[in-house]
Amino acid sequence: MTLPDRESQGRRLRAGIVGGGNGAFIGPIHRIAAELDGQALLVAGVLSSDPARAMRAAAEWRLPRAYEDFRTMAIEESRRKDGIDFAIIATPNDLHAPVARAFLDAGIPVVCDKPLALSAAEADELVRQVEASRLCFALTHPYAAYPLVREARERVARGALGELRRVVVEYQQDWLREPLEHEGHKQASWRTDPQRSGPGGCIGDIGTHAQHLLEYVAGRPIVALCADLTSFVAGRVLDDDANVLLRLEGGAKGVLTCSQIACGEENALTLRLYGAAAGLEWRQQEPNTLIWKPADAPWQLIRTGSSTAGVQARLATRTPAGHPEGYIEAFANIYSAFIADVRRCHAGETPIGGYPTVQDGARSMRFIQAVVESSRNGASWLAL
Amino acid sequence: MTLPDRESQGRRLRAGIVGGGNGAFIGPIHRIAAELDGQALLVAGVLSSDPARAMRAAAEWRLPRAYEDFRTMAIEESRRKDGIDFAIIATPNDLHAPVARAFLDAGIPVVCDKPLALSAAEADELVRQVEASRLCFALTHPYAAYPLVREARERVARGALGELRRVVVEYQQDWLREPLEHEGHKQASWRTDPQRSGPGGCIGDIGTHAQHLLEYVAGRPIVALCADLTSFVAGRVLDDDANVLLRLEGGAKGVLTCSQIACGEENALTLRLYGAAAGLEWRQQEPNTLIWKPADAPWQLIRTGSSTAGVQARLATRTPAGHPEGYIEAFANIYSAFIADVRRCHAGETPIGGYPTVQDGARSMRFIQAVVESSRNGASWLAL
Amino acid sequence: MTLPDRESQGRRLRAGIVGGGNGAFIGPIHRIAAELDGQALLVAGVLSSDPARAMRAAAEWRLPRAYEDFRTMAIEESRRKDGIDFAIIATPNDLHAPVARAFLDAGIPVVCDKPLALSAAEADELVRQVEASRLCFALTHPYAAYPLVREARERVARGALGELRRVVVEYQQDWLREPLEHEGHKQASWRTDPQRSGPGGCIGDIGTHAQHLLEYVAGRPIVALCADLTSFVAGRVLDDDANVLLRLEGGAKGVLTCSQIACGEENALTLRLYGAAAGLEWRQQEPNTLIWKPADAPWQLIRTGSSTAGVQARLATRTPAGHPEGYIEAFANIYSAFIADVRRCHAGETPIGGYPTVQDGARSMRFIQAVVESSRNGASWLAL
Amino acid sequence: MTLPDRESQGRRLRAGIVGGGNGAFIGPIHRIAAELDGQALLVAGVLSSDPARAMRAAAEWRLPRAYEDFRTMAIEESRRKDGIDFAIIATPNDLHAPVARAFLDAGIPVVCDKPLALSAAEADELVRQVEASRLCFALTHPYAAYPLVREARERVARGALGELRRVVVEYQQDWLREPLEHEGHKQASWRTDPQRSGPGGCIGDIGTHAQHLLEYVAGRPIVALCADLTSFVAGRVLDDDANVLLRLEGGAKGVLTCSQIACGEENALTLRLYGAAAGLEWRQQEPNTLIWKPADAPWQLIRTGSSTAGVQARLATRTPAGHPEGYIEAFANIYSAFIADVRRCHAGETPIGGYPTVQDGARSMRFIQAVVESSRNGASWLAL
Repeated sequence: MTLPDRESQGRRLRAGIVGGGNGAFIGPIHRIAAELDGQALLVAGVLSSDPARAMRAAAEWRLPRAYEDFRTMAIEESRRKDGIDFAIIATPNDLHAPVARAFLDAGIPVVCDKPLALSAAEADELVRQVEASRLCFALTHPYAAYPLVREARERVARGALGELRRVVVEYQQDWLREPLEHEGHKQASWRTDPQRSGPGGCIGDIGTHAQHLLEYVAGRPIVALCADLTSFVAGRVLDDDANVLLRLEGGAKGVLTCSQIACGEENALTLRLYGAAAGLEWRQQEPNTLIWKPADAPWQLIRTGSSTAGVQARLATRTPAGHPEGYIEAFANIYSAFIADVRRCHAGETPIGGYPTVQDGARSMRFIQAVVESSRNGASWLAL
Repeated sequence: MTLPDRESQGRRLRAGIVGGGNGAFIGPIHRIAAELDGQALLVAGVLSSDPARAMRAAAEWRLPRAYEDFRTMAIEESRRKDGIDFAIIATPNDLHAPVARAFLDAGIPVVCDKPLALSAAEADELVRQVEASRLCFALTHPYAAYPLVREARERVARGALGELRRVVVEYQQDWLREPLEHEGHKQASWRTDPQRSGPGGCIGDIGTHAQHLLEYVAGRPIVALCADLTSFVAGRVLDDDANVLLRLEGGAKGVLTCSQIACGEENALTLRLYGAAAGLEWRQQEPNTLIWKPADAPWQLIRTGSSTAGVQARLATRTPAGHPEGYIEAFANIYSAFIADVRRCHAGETPIGGYPTVQDGARSMRFIQAVVESSRNGASWLAL
Repeated sequence: MTLPDRESQGRRLRAGIVGGGNGAFIGPIHRIAAELDGQALLVAGVLSSDPARAMRAAAEWRLPRAYEDFRTMAIEESRRKDGIDFAIIATPNDLHAPVARAFLDAGIPVVCDKPLALSAAEADELVRQVEASRLCFALTHPYAAYPLVREARERVARGALGELRRVVVEYQQDWLREPLEHEGHKQASWRTDPQRSGPGGCIGDIGTHAQHLLEYVAGRPIVALCADLTSFVAGRVLDDDANVLLRLEGGAKGVLTCSQIACGEENALTLRLYGAAAGLEWRQQEPNTLIWKPADAPWQLIRTGSSTAGVQARLATRTPAGHPEGYIEAFANIYSAFIADVRRCHAGETPIGGYPTVQDGARSMRFIQAVVESSRNGASWLAL
Repeated sequence: MTLPDRESQGRRLRAGIVGGGNGAFIGPIHRIAAELDGQALLVAGVLSSDPARAMRAAAEWRLPRAYEDFRTMAIEESRRKDGIDFAIIATPNDLHAPVARAFLDAGIPVVCDKPLALSAAEADELVRQVEASRLCFALTHPYAAYPLVREARERVARGALGELRRVVVEYQQDWLREPLEHEGHKQASWRTDPQRSGPGGCIGDIGTHAQHLLEYVAGRPIVALCADLTSFVAGRVLDDDANVLLRLEGGAKGVLTCSQIACGEENALTLRLYGAAAGLEWRQQEPNTLIWKPADAPWQLIRTGSSTAGVQARLATRTPAGHPEGYIEAFANIYSAFIADVRRCHAGETPIGGYPTVQDGARSMRFIQAVVESSRNGASWLAL
């Protein structure tokens, strides 16, 4: 348990990062997002699992403190008077849990990439450690942090959609449409390797974003699924394409479809919900418009930053209407809420959340396992 | 078998219609589409199953010859020197096969609404009669007759998409989201009544359009499916919502999702195909743009009437680029090809097709039955 | 003056056409549009100024009566018991007035392509003849006949936009971006020739559509303008590009910009109006959506065929929401209202209009002349 | 002239800000943008012209050093060993030049909001001072710093558009459609006050962005203009709406239209260029798509972060394709290039630019003055 650290209230928090320095795009995004609101500074890191690369990258990033391995970093930072206030985990999936445990052991709050772990069992263990530690823990599902996703969730929650009936969530990419993993592509290599990525390929990498987004906005869980996974690229062990029938608590039904071989698609995460009174549609690639589809009335275009969006959307917005907010700003919304919670802990107050949790991460692991099992059973139905 | 009627070459063909006069939108569409290219004129009809209404409607339509029942019309027209050259069937589903049989018996070619019949067995019987009669028979799947759907099919056929991997076809409406059938709504009443509509509700009414469109463009059949049907509106017997996992010949997989309770959707039929070399997307509500998604190159917007569309699209187009063509023009493309075939028969030539056939109709009946059976079996897989 | 011809009430009207058979796209459009609603049939024509071509084309079109020149046609048709009920003029601009006068002289109502004449003086003369004859006369500005243009006009008329402040109307094409007129391109040749096209090039051919659309929807006239015309293609005498500042009655200001050398544009006619209470936007290439932009509320997408469009739009619509209506259907809306007026005249009733008039045509001629004069004066302001 | 400060290479630069703390949105944007790439930290500021507010705001922003007036800040910071490396000016327009001069006098590089000054004369004086000082100076036209605007400029520069013929640039907002300046709205008050805003209202505030964007992408200047300014809101002295005819060097013509009373528009800055070989279109509100319109080929959608964008776009991009970049990231691109230049100066190297300059600012002041003068002369032509 962290003791009150009232001195932190007058300064930016200090952050350290593990991973993210090897040409992965996500490392720099974490740095920018963590620092965006002027509430934190990145001061330490293990930017690569290769010690020499780690030191070189830290110099490029101008990090005051570079480490060769994460365990050393966790211990040393926990002992410094000016040690980091939280750790960021941006490694391949297999290291998420070990790194998280090391920092939690050292009493340091954690922001971790998804999926949380290699298995539901490993995830559950992490949940227990977080709960025991009472340390703040955030999982980075940035898509759910866009202003208009919050608007959508708020509308569903207040019943504006009516009884939820039908859901369609998609996530389509094409970057794995060729066997890049055999051509030395670092990102492709670990993501298609079950030892490093876990049991899900596409379904773990992006399907979990879709599942989380859907459940977050719908405000209710998937209770059963029937999944058909495919590995279209020859020689690939993990799935690169998934089609899943869904049933949600309360009777809604729908489809989750995701792919990393959908030729021509960049990052097409799209959510549509249909209730008895209205429908809604949100597209991540044009995230500043939420299409609202009321019964017997014209479609409305709800816009980020406009007076027509509600309070949750406005709290997540930094610019006036018509000044597009993007992926980085959404990502920063997770950090903003997480940092506020860390400050609350420092002040001896109770954290209030507002970002994806370790429990969300464990749920997604169960989702991955259910999808994989359903598919192995000939695409049969499974409860989740 | 029709004897050569060389005199028809110098005049418009004469058409008769059964149904379509009771406030259904589809009757007038058939008339406009049949006449659009100046190749046919509607001269006779039974516009309603209620004789008094039938006569009144015929006067409004200025039809020279009105009948009180379709059997009389078939017989009398077949005996006139200036009798109709073909019959149009725009009745509820339960009359499709009986009316078709009556005109075929009278030696008169037929254009028939979909779905073809009330069951696969009834459809197969009709197939046999058409094949024996050697009369022209067209089924009206107008969505597949848009210029850019033909462009899409042509591109798939010449291999521009590469190995087909992934398909998503949707058809979303909302007009049955309330129990209109209990409020005296004529269209809703017969469409939700298994006696008049057949075993499929939404899946028969619009799901068959989606299935036909997909197979037409993909150029290969669905070979297995797993369907989850729902009747969301209380008291409704037939499905008003359907989610179906698909497997296609050759290994492609995908999803067919359709609904008549998708709040806010008008007529959102959308097709997306993804191959190893390119993807494509077409949206019925903006039918004059085909999105082409090549690997590693920008998306291209192929447009109706432009020089960038191929020969099949151009043959189906009447206006220059930028002058939108709509649903009626697509519908007329079926008539245009059908009438040309009737003229070929009159001239003693072999018909060449280019429109949906009675066999397509029988296939859709098997599709409906497979979907219904799969859903009844707890959404289990079935071969098609 | 036409005598009451009560026998016409029970039959389709008979139409004759002059021009349109030489590969021009507009001839077949006139035929389809005139016949679309089952109220008229094309039975006679002079399809080309070359007699041999005229006869050949008439056979292809299966016209019962073909003529070699329009004067003969006017006289002979006026003498037949089954003569045409109205004439359609689809010739190059220089023949509009002479042909119209011939048919009016013969007591035959006229539908005429725009621009009405070669000069304002010639147009005014035609106005006088039409007014004296009391014959029906329609000018084909089809873009103003789309359902949602009527919706826009209705909204402005009932004050929903508030005080009109700002207008932007555009019409961009690219088909004249190369000197096609020197390469034997028939359409390009006459359109770039002041002897056949009149004083305006682009501004006459498409600028008048933009001017008419703007004034029709805004419900008030342009009162002053400042125009900068250009002939970008070497050797071209008439303008192929125009930028015009506008002032409207009542204080609104704006811009009309049109071009036939705007590379990549097909037929991009777009209208935007901004009032004190709302804005609106309509794009001809996606004509089934009207964007409504109220102050302090989300944009609304008003759709053709939906219950959210008003009565004027619904009267101009043939299909349910989500079934796109296109250019031909808009064109047919002019014929539908014109034919109803001809029938009224036959019945001895007063015509009620609902389509562009000969006076509208004369106004557009004054618009063309003002634009040309303003531009010649160094783009100075002129009253209109 | 700044002496080489080699120690700065290993650390983030230190920045100070004047203005931006009074509820203006632009202050926080400057902070985020300046710090985004981890190359600078905001450490000092005068956040308000009211000393008490200034101190309070600095505490909220957690600024280590707060000042009550900008002159003191300039002098004191220039004397500190850890003084700021550059100053940011985010005040109303009337203070731009005085504040800039104070920092330049103190040898401190400057990033300044636009428009640069209250008059062309004042701007020219500032140009002379910057040139004499050899200090880095950046003007914040963030819209020109979007990745795909750079792509557009690169394409024009390499001739891909062919001879430039036609330009249309728009900037439409609606936030001043009511007399907010009489209701105590701070932003509206100074922006509509000629003493604080300069001679241009809408044309100065947003018209200059449009002018700069156009000239930046086109790579050539406007050489003559004819402008019609209006103040639609009663009692407003400065224009809130502008329509301008343009002629560019080399013969291209076009239109600049901007408004702050265009009801329903948020921040609709749009640029379209048409050459002899291709056209292009970019819309600030969906900034991650550039529409490329080649002659006789389909439109292409060039996307931020994709392999289909060129080197200039990629250098300005932080996320992979499909992860939207927004306004803040574009703004940060100015800082990124400016900071690199400041570092070059510290290292004794020559700055290389890549951001809008003080000369660009002076040009925009001449543009504003020409527009105002043209409009006063009855919208007559003026050379620029």
